[in-house]
Amino acid sequence: MQMDKTAEGPLTPALVFETLQAHQRTAALKAAIDLDLFRAVGEGPGDVAFLARKCSASERGIRILCDFLTIHGLLVKENGSYRHSPTSAAFLDPRSPSCLASIAQFLANPALREPFDHLADVVRTGRTVLPGDGSVEPENPMWVQFAETMGPMMAPLAGPLGAVVLYGHNGPMRVLDIAAGHGLFGIEIAKQNPQARVTGLDWAPVLRVALDNARRAGVHDRYDMLPGSAFDVDFGGPYDAVLLTNFLHHFDKPTCVGLLRKVHRALKPGGRVATLEFVPNEDRISPPMPAAFSMTMLASTASGDAYTLSELTAMYREAGFDGISAHPIPQSPHTIVLGRS
Amino acid sequence: MQMDKTAEGPLTPALVFETLQAHQRTAALKAAIDLDLFRAVGEGPGDVAFLARKCSASERGIRILCDFLTIHGLLVKENGSYRHSPTSAAFLDPRSPSCLASIAQFLANPALREPFDHLADVVRTGRTVLPGDGSVEPENPMWVQFAETMGPMMAPLAGPLGAVVLYGHNGPMRVLDIAAGHGLFGIEIAKQNPQARVTGLDWAPVLRVALDNARRAGVHDRYDMLPGSAFDVDFGGPYDAVLLTNFLHHFDKPTCVGLLRKVHRALKPGGRVATLEFVPNEDRISPPMPAAFSMTMLASTASGDAYTLSELTAMYREAGFDGISAHPIPQSPHTIVLGRS
Repeated sequence: MQMDKTAEGPLTPALVFETLQAHQRTAALKAAIDLDLFRAVGEGPGDVAFLARKCSASERGIRILCDFLTIHGLLVKENGSYRHSPTSAAFLDPRSPSCLASIAQFLANPALREPFDHLADVVRTGRTVLPGDGSVEPENPMWVQFAETMGPMMAPLAGPLGAVVLYGHNGPMRVLDIAAGHGLFGIEIAKQNPQARVTGLDWAPVLRVALDNARRAGVHDRYDMLPGSAFDVDFGGPYDAVLLTNFLHHFDKPTCVGLLRKVHRALKPGGRVATLEFVPNEDRISPPMPAAFSMTMLASTASGDAYTLSELTAMYREAGFDGISAHPIPQSPHTIVLGRS
Repeated sequence: MQMDKTAEGPLTPALVFETLQAHQRTAALKAAIDLDLFRAVGEGPGDVAFLARKCSASERGIRILCDFLTIHGLLVKENGSYRHSPTSAAFLDPRSPSCLASIAQFLANPALREPFDHLADVVRTGRTVLPGDGSVEPENPMWVQFAETMGPMMAPLAGPLGAVVLYGHNGPMRVLDIAAGHGLFGIEIAKQNPQARVTGLDWAPVLRVALDNARRAGVHDRYDMLPGSAFDVDFGGPYDAVLLTNFLHHFDKPTCVGLLRKVHRALKPGGRVATLEFVPNEDRISPPMPAAFSMTMLASTASGDAYTLSELTAMYREAGFDGISAHPIPQSPHTIVLGRS
């Protein structure tokens, strides 16, 4: 059982009020990114007049926005001027190599936002109000945007994923990256093992983003493209390893098991499958970030979920995998689950 | 200077991700209220099947919604079932006398929500994107909704406000309640002093709500109605006290001073004006709730703000008041500021 957050002080409705206003925090951060405010904060003396000029915005608007961001930990205010917090310096200033402000574009995608305007209906029916299969409807253009904007959030996970998948593996190998998206996971394998050849599978418009990234990383001569749906195309193979990142959570268990069986058939004996997932504890309410991800799947899919390790293990086993192991990625809400064919 | 919230642990983008998803918390609480989930939690054994049946909703939807509310402190999960947290028992179960779930209706009003979909534009221009004067446009129907739904949030403040206004005052008196809304503040004066006669001023459709509340409190024979705009109607008088609650924050300083001068002229010598406001500290970033309220005023008005005590004091003085004193209401984000004519 978790602590009630209000148990320590006198009981007030502050949490209710704060929750009903929480949408303002999302809007404020999105607006600040759209106005390029974090670049201006990094450049300047940080007084309201300077920031307003840099952002072509009103002083009233900038002052209230910066105060609001400060209240919520995203800026620091000193002597009436604003400067970066460690978080905004590292992750929101476009001049930082770890800036991931672009993820705001994907997370504001109507396919992810709109169902929250009808969430009572979603809970009633138990599935997204979006047409068809929601976010995983074939050729949904949101996945081009995912590939284009979510890379900075995924890049820090690629190194650990590559290390887990390649552990004890040397020499020539073939790797299939299902739902490749930005392609960063497969590309990382190609970087860590110069004898690896990678096949990226995704919708054709998405794969163009992956190929651009492969070119930028200098591994495009070992990067093949397999356009289409993971459920429809022939995987080819056999492969030494298959990556299945940020994918299973969109589907119900039988669909996941069916896909894992198809993966199993495409692997060499002893080959590896690696999923990257938000994996909540068995209580489904901790840790907060992986556990809360179920809500995104409720809102945007027909039957997806954030699966626990026991659920993922059961799916792997049913599909014929063994030697299953979980590898939480430090300082991230993600977990790699590895299985062997 | 406030602490950076991420300074204590290793630096991760968790705060950025969490902020970009914060809108989900608002949607989840609103959906739970719309589904009457908190009544069902209070009634039942709290397992998913029971709650889904009570709310006429899917089990998948209820399970994910309840987990999400638990993660964010609004329910408690034990052995796979859900029960009230102290907060949800007191403030969200309709059977609780202190339930204030109705405020979700007002806070979801398009006039308050829509500007957040265009917040970068609001910051650029420095004023609401709503037409005219935004939320304070004449006869805006949102104030009927305010009067009908925000009473439960304001009711706990009425006792303290009445005590401050009546301190040292006995016998017959006349009180003007400007922007009366639900009427609870003036009604409380009439309850605390059986010789007080109260005049409620607001748009006519709003005053019907106040009069209903006055009837319910048994003080309607001492409750008069003055329909119209506080800026246009003749206040009459002279009054012993004028209440000006939740009002000044909608306007710029010259407008507030002009209104306070009009109040001053309507008071007997030595009479009292009492405002009830979100009053941030002079740093404008603390305490969080009053300071963050500036954002609501940026989004929904042309020139309103959450004013600091030094700003309110300056306005009071300019309008001719002295003996100015501030009275923070314990366990609430509100402060009463009293002045004498």
